[in-house]
Amino acid sequence: MMKKPQWVIEKERGRRAAAAETVWLFGLHAVRDALMNPARQRLRLVLTQNALAKLEDAVAASGMEPEIADARRFSAPLDPGSVHQGAALEARPLNWGALTDHMDGADARLVLLDRVSDPHNVGAILRSAEVFGARAVVGVERHAAPETGALAKAASGALERQPYLRVKNLGRAIAELQAAGFTVLGLDGEAEASVGDAARDLAGRPVALVLGAEGPGLRQGTRAACDQLVRIPAAGAFGSLNVSNAAAVALYALQPD
Amino acid sequence: MMKKPQWVIEKERGRRAAAAETVWLFGLHAVRDALMNPARQRLRLVLTQNALAKLEDAVAASGMEPEIADARRFSAPLDPGSVHQGAALEARPLNWGALTDHMDGADARLVLLDRVSDPHNVGAILRSAEVFGARAVVGVERHAAPETGALAKAASGALERQPYLRVKNLGRAIAELQAAGFTVLGLDGEAEASVGDAARDLAGRPVALVLGAEGPGLRQGTRAACDQLVRIPAAGAFGSLNVSNAAAVALYALQPD
Repeated sequence: MMKKPQWVIEKERGRRAAAAETVWLFGLHAVRDALMNPARQRLRLVLTQNALAKLEDAVAASGMEPEIADARRFSAPLDPGSVHQGAALEARPLNWGALTDHMDGADARLVLLDRVSDPHNVGAILRSAEVFGARAVVGVERHAAPETGALAKAASGALERQPYLRVKNLGRAIAELQAAGFTVLGLDGEAEASVGDAARDLAGRPVALVLGAEGPGLRQGTRAACDQLVRIPAAGAFGSLNVSNAAAVALYALQPD
Repeated sequence: MMKKPQWVIEKERGRRAAAAETVWLFGLHAVRDALMNPARQRLRLVLTQNALAKLEDAVAASGMEPEIADARRFSAPLDPGSVHQGAALEARPLNWGALTDHMDGADARLVLLDRVSDPHNVGAILRSAEVFGARAVVGVERHAAPETGALAKAASGALERQPYLRVKNLGRAIAELQAAGFTVLGLDGEAEASVGDAARDLAGRPVALVLGAEGPGLRQGTRAACDQLVRIPAAGAFGSLNVSNAAAVALYALQPD
């Protein structure tokens, strides 16, 4: 019998892992929001008596049968140090469809992440994207923060409501957006134009904002693909914004009137 | 012999602890910045050979004699999970003087924190304060994030350069600022006025921005002490900004021209 080549084995393994992929959400806030979200596929709910008392309505609404756990021997497989508050929910990642499902509107805003992978930053970016009405946050499959409990906690509910997509190739997504009429702005501390000036020029038009990871910033190919590079004006020569702070400021500056 | 009353014992103990207070900074970036900062009192430097090679210039500039540690048995007393990259420095917290030392300028900006205590958020706020030229970030002594290694890491160098004060009483600091001509703006999601409108009204005048902890927000007394409450305009009804993101947006909106 022919042995399968290594790449086939790996591809199959990847597919099996993706199909089995589940995430443990934890913390009262994140678990409540996931229980109330009709789009969330839920598998297992582990609660202390205490947490059950606090989440009673949400548990009833979800129709789930919780497993009651002792606070000192909490049976959900969480990372040590996870502040679970006696509540953990195993669920499947949300399916937000394709990028083309999130392009509507003359003044649409999108956030693209070029290898921003810290779950706290991505969680905060999801919150800002929701507050400022961005259609979606888009990461690159192999370098994006996975939809973990830590990300859900940092997102403080926004993970259930704010579309978070992972695409295979960021360059292709940028080209797709440009073909659909989006202006793609790359955030870059060295750029000449300010994001405020760009916002005035682009009023009433769809805009995608691209952010790079802290330190390296935008990759060369991403930078070249953008229609324009813009910076957030700084008062001094030192320092830089945390990436989620930069995203919030840029989304605020680009807010449609 | 009379026994000292308990409150005297506690006061003395507090004074001794404050005098002995040191902080372990860790990570290549934070340690390098602290080594290069002439205002930083340094006590002990622990490095791996590898980290020493990377920090050679900064170590030479500081005049310190590093203790060389094995990477697998790193001898600095850090919390487990601290990503120290083979570099740790014991130092004293910086002394930024009094609030009155940071009020100069017709368009001065200050950030007051009403019990914002998460070191990641405070670190990010220090970065934003530096980028947008705020004179200082001010916390309340007993409820502020202490100047820990985690805060230093989140601040990514800004801890060495951006004044971070702890005052005993926030209400008194607000009154002091108002007496000095500052307009004190409290950030509150329920406020009617937007921070952008307030910024236009206050152009060319000194402004202090007050932020509350996530969840509870501003305390009642703080809210009452502010000259005006302002909100960051949101596109929808759901969600809220991470507190450091809110600070960055408000500082951007209030940037002097």
